[in-house]
Amino acid sequence: MKLQVAMDVLTTEAALELAGKVAPYVDILELGTPLVKAEGLRAITAVKEAHPDKIVFADLKTMDAGELEAGMAFAAGADLVTVLGTAGDSTIVGAVKAAEAHGKGIVVDLIGVKDKVGRAREVHALGATFVEMHAGLDEQAEAGFTFETLLTDGEASTVPFSVAGGVKLSTIASVQKAGAEVAVAGGAIYGAADPGAAAAELRAAII
Amino acid sequence: MKLQVAMDVLTTEAALELAGKVAPYVDILELGTPLVKAEGLRAITAVKEAHPDKIVFADLKTMDAGELEAGMAFAAGADLVTVLGTAGDSTIVGAVKAAEAHGKGIVVDLIGVKDKVGRAREVHALGATFVEMHAGLDEQAEAGFTFETLLTDGEASTVPFSVAGGVKLSTIASVQKAGAEVAVAGGAIYGAADPGAAAAELRAAII
Repeated sequence: MKLQVAMDVLTTEAALELAGKVAPYVDILELGTPLVKAEGLRAITAVKEAHPDKIVFADLKTMDAGELEAGMAFAAGADLVTVLGTAGDSTIVGAVKAAEAHGKGIVVDLIGVKDKVGRAREVHALGATFVEMHAGLDEQAEAGFTFETLLTDGEASTVPFSVAGGVKLSTIASVQKAGAEVAVAGGAIYGAADPGAAAAELRAAII
Repeated sequence: MKLQVAMDVLTTEAALELAGKVAPYVDILELGTPLVKAEGLRAITAVKEAHPDKIVFADLKTMDAGELEAGMAFAAGADLVTVLGTAGDSTIVGAVKAAEAHGKGIVVDLIGVKDKVGRAREVHALGATFVEMHAGLDEQAEAGFTFETLLTDGEASTVPFSVAGGVKLSTIASVQKAGAEVAVAGGAIYGAADPGAAAAELRAAII
């Protein structure tokens, strides 16, 4: 199982600083959506140039113009780009087309999708590299949110999946047990007093 | 009825050039989602500084972290910011909270929402300034798309709405007749040989 850090910071400088601390322990460096909207494509280019050996994941959360948005992020240096599962199939197909043209991949973020299992299978058939079983920052704060649902949905989907939204030292073993390809940790790393140490601990918890 | 131009260009320079040509004829200058992702918040600031008398609309299409994303766009100079209708209620509530703090407004983009009428009423009750009856660029290219559904849904919602996705000289009268607060024209303006003249013609078609 790969380890991905979601860098939910708001400046390229902060992202580069965080990436510098955690890169030795993670496989995938994710630029969070607010970071991309705050800084633009130059943030993607900066992180890829600083860490050419890492998989750079741009959390675009594309809802329309799939080929255009994914294409510009790949051209800027991204290796994986997200499209929303609530987007229409033609948007996902467009993004997959851009991924094929660049030799890169599309991840479909299932945030906000009611039937995550069914949609996971649909978008996998459309060419998504994997799906992200994801509870958003707002959703995690809602009453009734349970992390376990993400795991059971991932397992039930029988397609490659990552898990995001609540991954931390006490839950990462359950993510691996559920069969996830990637565990995405955000606040558990960037919110730690020592992000490098937190990433190292998460890495060590992966068997 | 107000006229909004959707500036689906990819650089701040192109947006400023387009805005300079069309500003005399439009009420609202929209920075399209790909532009925001390409250039970041600086594009919003540049357009607002060049056109302080216009309403600047940042099409963020926020799906998570509503308060954070809306707040940063308002701080950069946006007057209106979009949140997706497919986002959870807590994301919309967060964005409305940011709008209230800044004395600005939230528009909920109903792209991808199946029951646009029902969701329009829900998000209006949550504090959205208006909803956008919107067919995306990809959706417009799909078989079976009809522009008229956007108008009948807007009328049926009985809440303030804009219409986007197919607004042009031959359809703008029907948009006004349906009771829209705002008509959003994209390709009909930026794709014209003379965008200023195209905007002026659309403006003249509003009674």
